[in-house]
Amino acid sequence: MKIYETRTAPNPRRVRIFLAEKQISDVEFIQLDLQNGDNLTADFQRKNPLKKVPVLELDDGQYISETVAICRYFEEVNPNYPLMGSSPVEKAQIEMWQRWVEFYLFVPTGMCFQHTSGYFKDRMNPIKEWGEECRSQILKFMSIMNAHLQANEFLLGDKYCIADITAICAIDFNRVNRITIPEECAHLLRWYSAVSSRPSAKV
Amino acid sequence: MKIYETRTAPNPRRVRIFLAEKQISDVEFIQLDLQNGDNLTADFQRKNPLKKVPVLELDDGQYISETVAICRYFEEVNPNYPLMGSSPVEKAQIEMWQRWVEFYLFVPTGMCFQHTSGYFKDRMNPIKEWGEECRSQILKFMSIMNAHLQANEFLLGDKYCIADITAICAIDFNRVNRITIPEECAHLLRWYSAVSSRPSAKV
Repeated sequence: MKIYETRTAPNPRRVRIFLAEKQISDVEFIQLDLQNGDNLTADFQRKNPLKKVPVLELDDGQYISETVAICRYFEEVNPNYPLMGSSPVEKAQIEMWQRWVEFYLFVPTGMCFQHTSGYFKDRMNPIKEWGEECRSQILKFMSIMNAHLQANEFLLGDKYCIADITAICAIDFNRVNRITIPEECAHLLRWYSAVSSRPSAKV
Repeated sequence: MKIYETRTAPNPRRVRIFLAEKQISDVEFIQLDLQNGDNLTADFQRKNPLKKVPVLELDDGQYISETVAICRYFEEVNPNYPLMGSSPVEKAQIEMWQRWVEFYLFVPTGMCFQHTSGYFKDRMNPIKEWGEECRSQILKFMSIMNAHLQANEFLLGDKYCIADITAICAIDFNRVNRITIPEECAHLLRWYSAVSSRPSAKV
């Protein structure tokens, strides 16, 4: 199996942490330079029509795009160390948190970067006011996470899961937006210190 | 089981179609008036801190928010008529398409509405230029779907799945943005006619 990715981008890191937590290591990683447009070639577009990383190539030549879809594949074929839940209720609750973190923290983080930094201005229409709106959404969601983590070790109680991975990748990537966890978010800071000290966070 | 929802909103319709396709009918629906702020009360915020519909209340009093998380719960407890895949590869490919449709069609549809119509202007910061950018993303993704549907009956080959449900709800809701499928998208129009004529589309 191969994963086409970009080392510094936040979505590929989600997959790498997921694989590290599940102790899966038989995957080859192939680097693409996004700023150089390696993802915009006709060859890569055949792998993913949306031209995004990461993309998983299975040994039979099939391609799977989208971070959470790639994680789903590995969770299904390697049920050990489950990160997406075991019972129906747990699976649903993890998917709920995973989506909350994605829609209200991870996606605004990427949009804040793209719409305020000018990084991809040759291939999109940056709208600064929208980027700044995303910045305020990020801080609002950090405060929701902080309140929840007052009574919970991780996002799903005492079990580390895929939602924690999405959150740590979003928070770390916010260095490009110059956003850090506010000092008053003590519970979020405690959680951040715990998830960051896991060996998987170093990948 | 109860579902708190709003009949006219697109996310609750995704759940209703999902349940109809799986022939699940033992769920009570409770209507909330979003424009009146029924979802902004302290009582509803205890059910969903993000204040969105739909929310599923289980018989033991637990709450599950987020459309796809609610669908996941029903898929897990009722594996008949699978809409989220059977094999690991199929589950991953359905999740890939479900996410593509969500990120590049469904979410831009809602944002185009919210940022151009002024509907929720008392509780958000509408940015017209961003709403118009979403409008162009919607049309771009319709063209990607059209190309894919040239060789596929549904988004996942010959199997109707949750990604088709997300797409039909997004396309129908685009009436509020005055966007319809462009005439040149013949394959998308053929697919739209097929999915719209299923009994589930009437719910």
